[in-house]
Amino acid sequence: MEGYGLFLVLLVSALLLGFLSVLFALVWVFHYREGLSWDGGSAEFNWHPVLIITGFIFIQGIAIIVYRLPWTWKCSKLLIKFIHAGLNTLAMILAIVSLVAVFDFHNAKNIPNMYSLHSWIGLTAVIFYTLQLVLGFAVFLLPFAPVSLRASLMPIHIYSGLLIFATVIATALMGFTEKLIFALKTAPAYSTSPPEAIFVNTLGLLIVIFGALILWMATRPHWKRPPEQNSKIQQPNGGTPEGTEEESTMTDCSNTDKSDVEFNSEAAARKRNLKLDEVGQRSTM
Amino acid sequence: MEGYGLFLVLLVSALLLGFLSVLFALVWVFHYREGLSWDGGSAEFNWHPVLIITGFIFIQGIAIIVYRLPWTWKCSKLLIKFIHAGLNTLAMILAIVSLVAVFDFHNAKNIPNMYSLHSWIGLTAVIFYTLQLVLGFAVFLLPFAPVSLRASLMPIHIYSGLLIFATVIATALMGFTEKLIFALKTAPAYSTSPPEAIFVNTLGLLIVIFGALILWMATRPHWKRPPEQNSKIQQPNGGTPEGTEEESTMTDCSNTDKSDVEFNSEAAARKRNLKLDEVGQRSTM
Repeated sequence: MEGYGLFLVLLVSALLLGFLSVLFALVWVFHYREGLSWDGGSAEFNWHPVLIITGFIFIQGIAIIVYRLPWTWKCSKLLIKFIHAGLNTLAMILAIVSLVAVFDFHNAKNIPNMYSLHSWIGLTAVIFYTLQLVLGFAVFLLPFAPVSLRASLMPIHIYSGLLIFATVIATALMGFTEKLIFALKTAPAYSTSPPEAIFVNTLGLLIVIFGALILWMATRPHWKRPPEQNSKIQQPNGGTPEGTEEESTMTDCSNTDKSDVEFNSEAAARKRNLKLDEVGQRSTM
Repeated sequence: MEGYGLFLVLLVSALLLGFLSVLFALVWVFHYREGLSWDGGSAEFNWHPVLIITGFIFIQGIAIIVYRLPWTWKCSKLLIKFIHAGLNTLAMILAIVSLVAVFDFHNAKNIPNMYSLHSWIGLTAVIFYTLQLVLGFAVFLLPFAPVSLRASLMPIHIYSGLLIFATVIATALMGFTEKLIFALKTAPAYSTSPPEAIFVNTLGLLIVIFGALILWMATRPHWKRPPEQNSKIQQPNGGTPEGTEEESTMTDCSNTDKSDVEFNSEAAARKRNLKLDEVGQRSTM
C-alpha cells in the first residue's frame, strides 16, 4: 500500500479522536449535566448526544473507511461488506434510540418536537441514512442486482454516504449550540465562557477534525481496496468494477494461500483498480 | 462532455438555489428583522448573514465549479485560474467585512466575542480560507513553483477547498440556530414555529442542497476540465498533470481556431485526463 505509514498515522489519529469524542460526551453528561437515565427528564435527553456521537459519528466514520484497512484486503469482499453494513446498522439503531430519547424528553416536558433547523436536518439525515442502508443492502449485498445497476449506483452510494456523514457532523454542531444556549441560560451564561462551554466547544472541534480525517482517508484513490482476484466477470481491460464482481465463497481471512496470492498481486490489482477509476465505476470505500 | 444535459440541469438548479438563498437572506433581514445599516445595532449585525450567504457560500460555490463549465474549456487555463482566484478573493473580502459587522455589533452592545462554537469554527474557516487563497496564489498562479510541488499540493488544495466550503455551510447552520434562539426568545418563541422560524429553517435547507449540488459537480471525474492542448511540459504518457502545464499565452476565449482544435480534440484530452487521475495528480476543479 502506497503511503502505508501515513495511512496508519491518520487511522490512529482518527481512532483517538473518535474515542476522545465519546469520552468527552460522557464527561459532559456525567460531570456537567444530569448523567444518564430513562425517566423523561434531562438525564434521558442526555442519551441523545452520547448515542449520536458514539453511533452516528464514531461508528459511522469507521464503517466508511473499513474497506480501506489494508490488512482486510486478504479477507473476502463479502465479509467486509457485511462488516460495513453491520456497523452502519448498529449506527442507525443507536441514532434511532437517541431520537426516541429526545422525543420522549420533549413530550414529558411539553416541549414541541421538530421546530428547530437541527431537528429538520437531523431527521432528514436519519431518513436518508436508513434509505441508503436498505438500498445498499438490496443492491450490493443481496446477489440479485445486475452488474450494470451496481456499477451505476456505486458513485451515488459513495457520494451519499460521505454527504450524510458530513451532514450528521454539521447537525451535531447545531445540537451543541442549541444545548449550550438552553442549558447555560443564566449564570454562568454561555457568553461568559464557563468551563462547560469551553469543554463542549472543544468537543465540537474534535468531531470536525475526526470527520476531516475520515473524509481524507475515504477519498484518496491510492488507498482504495484492490478488486478481488477471483472475479468471474471480467471486463475487456481485465478489471472488474467494484461491487460488480462475483463474490468469493471465502468469508474469513484465514485462507493463507489465497491471501498470499492477493498480497503478492497487489501491484497488478492496483493497476487495474486505477484503470477502473477512469470510468468512475469503482467504490472509493 | 459526457452527461452535458445533467450537468446543465444541476448547474441551473445550483444557481437558482444560490440566488434564492441570497434572496431569502435579504427577506429575512428586511421583512423579519431590522434591515441593513452600519450603526452598531442589530441592522449592522444583519450584514453578517447577508454577506456570508452571498460571498462565503454562493460565490465560493461558483468559484469551486468554475473549471467545470464546459464553455470555458476553450479559454486559457490561466484566465480560469484568475476567475477562480478572483471569485475566492471577493468571497474572502465579503466574509471579513461580515466578521467586522459582528465584532462591531458585539462591542457596541457589550456582548463578548468568540465564545460560541459557531465563532470558533467560523473564524477557523476564514483563517484557513485565507491561507488556502494565499498558498493557491503562490503555488498555482505565480509561475515560480516547480511542477512537482504543484502536482503534490493539488490534491490537498482540492480537498481543503471542499472541506472549508462544507465547514462554512455547517457554520452558517449553527449561526441560523443561534440567531433564531436569541431573536425569538419571547412570543413568538422559536419553539412555537412562527413564520420567521419556518422561513429561516427553509433557508438552511436551501443552503444544504446548494452545497450538495456543488460538491457533486466538483467531484465527478468525467466533468473535469481537460488539460491544455498546448502544454510544453509533456508527461511520458502524453498527458500533463493539472496545474503543472505551462500556461497558454492566450488569456481570452476569442481565439476561434484554437478553440476549435481544443473542442475537436476533447475526446483525446479526456482520455489523457483520465489517465492522470490514476496518480491522483489532476485537479478536480
